[in-house]
Amino acid sequence: MGARKSDTRERMLESAVALLREHGARATSIDRVLAHSGAPRGSFYHHFPGGRAQLVEEAVARVGGFVAGLLDEAAASGDALRGVDAFFALWRERLVESGFRAGCSVVAVAVETNDEAPQLARSAAAAFARWTDALADLFAGQGLPAARARRLAAFTVAAVEGAVIMCRAERSAAPLDAAAAEIHDLLSNTLRPPRSTI
Amino acid sequence: MGARKSDTRERMLESAVALLREHGARATSIDRVLAHSGAPRGSFYHHFPGGRAQLVEEAVARVGGFVAGLLDEAAASGDALRGVDAFFALWRERLVESGFRAGCSVVAVAVETNDEAPQLARSAAAAFARWTDALADLFAGQGLPAARARRLAAFTVAAVEGAVIMCRAERSAAPLDAAAAEIHDLLSNTLRPPRSTI
Repeated sequence: MGARKSDTRERMLESAVALLREHGARATSIDRVLAHSGAPRGSFYHHFPGGRAQLVEEAVARVGGFVAGLLDEAAASGDALRGVDAFFALWRERLVESGFRAGCSVVAVAVETNDEAPQLARSAAAAFARWTDALADLFAGQGLPAARARRLAAFTVAAVEGAVIMCRAERSAAPLDAAAAEIHDLLSNTLRPPRSTI
Repeated sequence: MGARKSDTRERMLESAVALLREHGARATSIDRVLAHSGAPRGSFYHHFPGGRAQLVEEAVARVGGFVAGLLDEAAASGDALRGVDAFFALWRERLVESGFRAGCSVVAVAVETNDEAPQLARSAAAAFARWTDALADLFAGQGLPAARARRLAAFTVAAVEGAVIMCRAERSAAPLDAAAAEIHDLLSNTLRPPRSTI
């Protein structure tokens, strides 16, 4: 039964992420997560004793960790441009494969923060902070002073998230491609070459 | 009665903008707009025969026009940096004066576009396009080729919108200040000085 139980929990989390991306935080209700995941109603509070807020918080933390993992992989290569290009490519793929219906679940929570439990704004902020930290480490590793590295990292996260939203409204990848090209050029002109290539 | 009528219409539109900013598109129901504006229920379909979708569409168009007006004022001065700084300052002021509760109503509609009438995604896209066009004109006026001017303009809009969302989650203006400083430096290094100062 242990394996089945954790399958159910996993399915509910995956459904929460999918619903957040496409429909936003308010629309990600327990009823909708149960319908989307096919999980039995009776299992919800067993897996998420903190209720819907716990589920949404874990969903945001999962997306935060997944994207940070991508950036950490790039950090291992020491190549910031590779990391940033992968960050943009991830969102582009999500947008295109969903027909521009799916955005970022962290943004979904952040824009509805006034109507949600206070820990949800903190979990969205923590995801943005993880990505900013990972990018700042990459930039600092290629010669930027720490303060500038953080500034440029926050700017990069902002540009990606804003561009994803514009893409959804336009039903086109053009805003994300514009932001990716500008950030790519800016980093090429600002960073030292990665250690591994010199 | 004419003046009263248009007052009522105006109040409903202002309430819709305020609710979109703080609570998002789905939360901006007819009931909530009536409660927020104090407008009589019977007047709603008189002023907005297209129902809630018409109200939200007009609210988005109003914000789009207001912000574009700011950028057009800067265009009249020929100084792109001034325009971009005003664009950032506008959102910063909104965030700070609302205690980081109020974001961008155009973004609110864009992120909930799957659950809304199709014309709402188009109205959000049109607002982003107006801002992008206005910034692109400013950048082209200071020496950038048209394609690069458009790319940089879309990037600027994306960075502002993404940063506003991060500020709401963090309850801090730091992400917007980071984006403003990066864009300011990038434009200073990229654009010719404005005609009026040479």
